[in-house]
Order: sequence, then C-alpha cells, then structure tokens
Amino acid sequence: MATAFNKPVIRALRIGYPATLPPELFSDFPKDVVLIPLSDAPGPEIDIDVWIPDPYSTVAMRTWPKLRGVRLVLCLMAGTEWIPRTVGPHVTICNARGAHSISTAEWTIASILAMFKHFPFFLEVERSGQWKRRFGASALYASISGDTRPLYPPVMLEELTGKTVLMVGHGSIGQEIERMLAPFNVDLIRVARSPRVDPHVHAVSDLDSLLPRAQVVILILPATPESHKLIGAPQLALMQQGTLLVNAARGPIVDTDALVEALNAGRIRAAIDVTDPEPLPEGHPLWSCPNLLLTPHVAGSTPQFAPRSVRTAADELRRYMAGEPFHNVVQAAV
Amino acid sequence: MATAFNKPVIRALRIGYPATLPPELFSDFPKDVVLIPLSDAPGPEIDIDVWIPDPYSTVAMRTWPKLRGVRLVLCLMAGTEWIPRTVGPHVTICNARGAHSISTAEWTIASILAMFKHFPFFLEVERSGQWKRRFGASALYASISGDTRPLYPPVMLEELTGKTVLMVGHGSIGQEIERMLAPFNVDLIRVARSPRVDPHVHAVSDLDSLLPRAQVVILILPATPESHKLIGAPQLALMQQGTLLVNAARGPIVDTDALVEALNAGRIRAAIDVTDPEPLPEGHPLWSCPNLLLTPHVAGSTPQFAPRSVRTAADELRRYMAGEPFHNVVQAAV
Repeated sequence: MATAFNKPVIRALRIGYPATLPPELFSDFPKDVVLIPLSDAPGPEIDIDVWIPDPYSTVAMRTWPKLRGVRLVLCLMAGTEWIPRTVGPHVTICNARGAHSISTAEWTIASILAMFKHFPFFLEVERSGQWKRRFGASALYASISGDTRPLYPPVMLEELTGKTVLMVGHGSIGQEIERMLAPFNVDLIRVARSPRVDPHVHAVSDLDSLLPRAQVVILILPATPESHKLIGAPQLALMQQGTLLVNAARGPIVDTDALVEALNAGRIRAAIDVTDPEPLPEGHPLWSCPNLLLTPHVAGSTPQFAPRSVRTAADELRRYMAGEPFHNVVQAAV
Repeated sequence: MATAFNKPVIRALRIGYPATLPPELFSDFPKDVVLIPLSDAPGPEIDIDVWIPDPYSTVAMRTWPKLRGVRLVLCLMAGTEWIPRTVGPHVTICNARGAHSISTAEWTIASILAMFKHFPFFLEVERSGQWKRRFGASALYASISGDTRPLYPPVMLEELTGKTVLMVGHGSIGQEIERMLAPFNVDLIRVARSPRVDPHVHAVSDLDSLLPRAQVVILILPATPESHKLIGAPQLALMQQGTLLVNAARGPIVDTDALVEALNAGRIRAAIDVTDPEPLPEGHPLWSCPNLLLTPHVAGSTPQFAPRSVRTAADELRRYMAGEPFHNVVQAAV
C-alpha cells in the first residue's frame, strides 16, 4: 500500500515543443511542467514525456529520432496519419480535433464560391486590362435552354444556392462546412465511414451510386488505407459534366493521374488544397491543368489556428496529469 | 354610367421586350397582351404601353428614342438610376427588387472569402508551377504578436469568422448578404439611408465615426445624388490598415481617384464589381492596382436571375392590369 512515506519523488513532466514556435504560445500550460524547445538539427538524445511535434511533419519526423521516453504525442494538427508509423504503437496520440475546423471550412466555402463565380477567369480578365464579360444579353438568358456550360470560358456566373452537394466525411470540419453551407439551401448528401440516421449519413459503400447526383463533391475525411484513392477514374467518370471536386482533406484520397486526365478532358473542375505527391514537384502535370484552383496545403493556416490548437493541447495535458480520459485520442498506446 | 353597351373597345396591352431575349422567357405573361420584340437598331416609331428595357442600359437607351406611348417601365434589374433621366417623370418605373439578391449576395461573400484566403496570390503561385507557401511555422505563429499583415505577399490565410463588417445599404440584397454572413459570426454594423431600431441600422451621417471599427466595408446601396462619392479620400483614410472595401452596388459611390491612391499606397484592399467610369477603359490606372479583385459588372448575372426577374415583371404586369398597387415602384408617374 502506498503511504505518504514511500510516495515516489515524481519528476516534473517534460514537454518537448517545436523551437520554431514562440514559447509564449504555451503560457496557458500547467505551471509544474518543464517546457523543452526541440529543433530538427542533429544533436544529443533528449528525454521528454510528452511531444508536441512541429506543425510541418517533415520537420517533426527529423526531430523524432533523438527523442527518448515519449509516452504521449499532442499533435497541433487534425491530420495525424504520419505519426503512428513514426512513433510506433506504444505511444498515445491525441490530435487537435476542431482547431482547424473554422479555417478549413472557410477555405472550402471560399473555393466553391470562387469557382462558381469564375474568379480565376476574371482575374485573367483583370490582368488583361480589358472590360470583357464574354457574355451578352443572349448568353445571359441562354440558361433557360438548360445549358449552363460551366467550364471555361464561362457563359455566366453560377449560384451555389440550390445545388446538390455531396460531402464525403462528416467529422468536426465536415460539420463546420455543413453549418457554413446552410444559407445556400443546398441539397446536402452526407457520406462517411460510419453511416448514421440523424442527420442522415450514407455509408462509403453507397458513394458510387450517389456521385451522379451532385454538382459539388467535397472530400473532408481522414487519410486511411480505406480512403486511399477513394476517388479514382471510375468515380470521376460517374460525376456530372462540370462537377466541382473539392479536396480539403489529403492528397492520396484522389488518384492524381485520373484527376489530371479528367481535368484536361474538360470533364470536371477541381479546387484542391492537398496533392499527391506533396509538395507537388515542379513540372508535375497537375500544375498546368485547366479549371483547377490549387493552394499549397494552406487551408488551415490562419492566425486563429495557433491559439486554438495550443488550447486544445493544454486541455489534453491537464487531463493526462489529472488521470482523466483524453478528448481526442487517435491512437491509444498498446 | 358605363354600360356593356357603351364600353369602349380596349386595345390589348402592348409590351415591348428586348429582341435579345428569347420570347419563351415571357410564357408566364398574361395571355391577352401583345409581346413586341424591340431592337436598338434605328427604325420606325413603335407604339407600346409597357417597356421592358434591355438588361444592358446602353442598349436600352439606344432603343428608347423610337418608343411612343410608354406608360410603364418594368426593369429586369435592381439598379434603375439611368431610367428616370431617359424616360422622364411621366412614366411609372418598377424594378426587379429581389431578382438579383441571391446572385449578388453570393458574389459578395465569394469576393470577401477569396480575398481573405488570398486566392489572387495563390493563383499566381499556381501559374508559377512552384509549391510556395511563403510562410513557415514561425510565420504561422507570428500572429500572436497581433501583426497579421494582411497585404501581399500574405503571411497566412485570414478568417472571416469574428471580423467586424460594416454594411452600407440594407435593402433586399443587403439583407441577403446578412443572411449569408450569419455562419461566420461577424460583428455586423449596418448603415442605411433610413436608420432603424430593430435590427439596428445607423444613419449614413454616422458613417465616418463607424468606418474605423471595420475590417470589411460592404457597399450595397442605390446610386443616388446623396450616395455619389460617399466613399472618398477622407473615408478611405478612416479605414483600418488592410481593410477590404467591397463594392457590389454602383461605381460612382466610390471616388475612383481616391480608391486608386489608397490601393497603390497599400492602405486598403478592394473587391469591386462596378467602376466609375463603366466600362473601365483600357489603360485606366485601376486595372493595375495591387490588392484588387475587379469583375466587370457581372455579380448579378447567373442563369437563375432571368426567370426570377421575368417572374417579378409578370407579377407587376398582372397587378397593373388588375388595377392593384405595384410591389416595387421606384418612380410613380407624375
């Protein structure tokens, strides 16, 4: 039986955090922990209990080999697919579920609206310095024939209001996207790994039968072996002419070669924040595809993200120290 | 007393509509009217009772001189400022209030989000074919210093959520914009010609004192003598560094020279669908201003606009024929 007498001296918890981040960010952390800045430069082994990896996984992966004693990883990001294969199964991993939700959901709505309003085209018009609408009154009203010809050059601007949107993934970011879609009165079809009744969420096995119904397909699911190349040539072929594919999740969920082919054929449009491979190398055919908005994995990167994700990590740390269950475990140590 | 006997023979109402529009658009019009297509080509005088002007005011103004007998103008657009000075005071004018609301409100949200997500910058990155984020982890977290440096090159993406938005004008489009802003939990300050209590709408005379509070200023009020150059150099100077000015209303509401100067000085950003003059001539300094998204007066032009505005016109026509009051009179005949 433990008594005050034989209670072991407990060393203060040692938290390794990225040296690239300002220590003030962690001012809300419990006072009785030791904060240790970690760089990815080669150096001596460092003993820590809890690891907060660098936001850039390549930096974090270079840091890992010199760490010893890590029992808990508190990831500041939502996507953690690189961590289990780096740290192995004997470490608990929590992510910052929710910290990216607002920023990534905003990027998703922004990219859909920018494509529907043909901003890439009009930015070219602006650069040309010529007042070109590319559509006169007759084109303005051509739509009553049912032909809205969504691909470049655009006949006219499109409305998101009333469109059918298929969302694959319904986690915290997906739910935030749904909230931001509400004013547009879209017909929302939800698909996720776990089908649900209220709200109605279809199983991923229904995906192929649902794809032909949508004008917008949003990918916002985790990268897992099951979601690898979930959208390949057959799925792209099932989409309506001119469908907008939005990838705010992870590059490998889409078959890049099939995407390049569908874009170059003028079959669909895409707005993607992620690619496979990533970073996308110079000269890759995706760079020159038409009807594509490509941002370099920045959707979640806003000034508000850092305080949100660090707050989430501080909360998980407090739970750990109090022996309470974590909020966002993505891997429990075996 | 009128009897069946001496009831005058009433000529069927003659409706002139733009020859550029397909006649099927008017299939919902009352059956007992005569529809007469009108072109802007020189030709003989044409007797009509009701005029539906071409959606492009320059075409409509060239058509007007050959029209005789017009008592009512049913404008398919929301903005009618050119009509009274063309047709004079003895004609009633109705506009298509509401027909542009969804499309123009969507353009407004689209342009704000596109600027906050720095899509013009990332489209340049995409064209360069190089994976450039322009910000590493240190920049990602620089925001805690309070310096978010919104102008190009962007430090990181910005969130609309939580920002202070000043909206000048609160008609049908303004109210639609407010509805679409709701998920972003902005602090909305409303300004309009007619101050109101619920919801709180400030008087235009309060504008200067309110401008310093906003990160986004949306102009969505009619062009009137009072709103002419409402936003001039003094108003631009009152805005916060990096404020986004959105003009979805009419070009002359902003002093173009002052706007060019503020943009070139890197003081503010702008997203505008309208200019003064319009069309903006080649070589105009506005074309080459930085931090500007300029679309050539297309915000309202979506396939859904035509059926909506023609439905509104058909409804006003029915009211006219039944002797009922109009819904959207912008000028009553004197």
